[in-house]
Amino acid sequence: MYIETKKRSLLKGISWRFIATTTTIIIVYFFFGRLDLAIAAGFLETLAKILLYFFHERAWQKIKFGKQRIEPFNLWFTGLPLSGKSTLADAVYTELNKLDIPLERIDSKDIRDVIPNVGFKRDDRHQHLTRVGHLIKTLQNNSVSAIASFISPYTETRQAIADMTNNYIEVYVKADIETCIARDKTGIYLKAQAGELQNFTGVSDVFEQPVHPDIIIDSNKQSIAEATQIIVTFIKKHYMP
Amino acid sequence: MYIETKKRSLLKGISWRFIATTTTIIIVYFFFGRLDLAIAAGFLETLAKILLYFFHERAWQKIKFGKQRIEPFNLWFTGLPLSGKSTLADAVYTELNKLDIPLERIDSKDIRDVIPNVGFKRDDRHQHLTRVGHLIKTLQNNSVSAIASFISPYTETRQAIADMTNNYIEVYVKADIETCIARDKTGIYLKAQAGELQNFTGVSDVFEQPVHPDIIIDSNKQSIAEATQIIVTFIKKHYMP
Repeated sequence: MYIETKKRSLLKGISWRFIATTTTIIIVYFFFGRLDLAIAAGFLETLAKILLYFFHERAWQKIKFGKQRIEPFNLWFTGLPLSGKSTLADAVYTELNKLDIPLERIDSKDIRDVIPNVGFKRDDRHQHLTRVGHLIKTLQNNSVSAIASFISPYTETRQAIADMTNNYIEVYVKADIETCIARDKTGIYLKAQAGELQNFTGVSDVFEQPVHPDIIIDSNKQSIAEATQIIVTFIKKHYMP
Repeated sequence: MYIETKKRSLLKGISWRFIATTTTIIIVYFFFGRLDLAIAAGFLETLAKILLYFFHERAWQKIKFGKQRIEPFNLWFTGLPLSGKSTLADAVYTELNKLDIPLERIDSKDIRDVIPNVGFKRDDRHQHLTRVGHLIKTLQNNSVSAIASFISPYTETRQAIADMTNNYIEVYVKADIETCIARDKTGIYLKAQAGELQNFTGVSDVFEQPVHPDIIIDSNKQSIAEATQIIVTFIKKHYMP
């Protein structure tokens, strides 16, 4: 975030007044051919406009029209491991960033890198995501919206996040488990199926399907571009002035 | 955060142009007594100034002078339980809020209310504060500064927070343990001394004194008002344009 120093505003004001007054003097001279009166009119104009501009600004301070509060949202992507949540959330982030609103991208992997030693049991997951909810809430207090992608397999946890944050928008990224396995380059599904990874969502842990998601993306049928379009349109319609 | 809609900016522009041009017409009429020419000069002025204002704005876009990036800071209060950290941090928050910069107040108690079941052993504390560090870092990514108050008894943890965040400012709130005990209305020190509370800093757990704090406040000698003044002056000097 950048701010303008007082010196910059002052210099900019002076440079504009110089241009504006010179223009008036030239126009008046062009019409009437009297340079002395043109200059006098220019000076009178300068004085008058500095005062008038001040009162114009003060009057607009009192007018509420067209002042809109940005309502920070929490765009939450849920779905099986490798369903395509992160890729889609990244694409949506890139698009929404163009709108020039304060925005933070929060991904499960990044958070687990920063805060390690969190397990995958029901309680661990729930508490971990409650912390993420608190992070998002704090960002929202400061007008920042979030784009979050987490497996978040339990209805209870998603409900808790929805309650903690403002304008919770649930995006369910749907994918067959076969599709997810087919995308699995690192072999984590195989490891889970062999019992080497415990509490693995979709294999050894439940994924409770979202009951009333705001948006459903079928990652077997919809391309990233199509899905991005749907989500960005939804956000623009509901949360942009 | 509020934004101006396009409609508001447009209306404001029109209302200013109306006032400005009317002023020019009146001035020119006053000098020369010819209303027809005055109106013609007014219209020419309007056209000229709309164009000139545009180029003036574009030219200033290219001028770097006076554009200053806000550098979000992390004002970190450390000290014994009941040393007065939170009270002082609250007072500093109230003062700094007047500067109209994005600011978040983060207190140990609030965080532990939101994220319960965190212990007080060395590892628990360290991991808990690392999460707080991550929260502050994410806020700083969005230009938000933090005012944080945590006992944060270990040098190692404070160093980790300093490394994670930008512009870490350590405020050591110094108080004799006797003073802290005298302030103890809820009897937590007594409970700790009786062995009912484990890992209690200052009684059954160490407080490693800050080695090179940026600011030391002696809460036995300095009033809240004096201490607030010192800290606010420091912030204004180092972090405000």
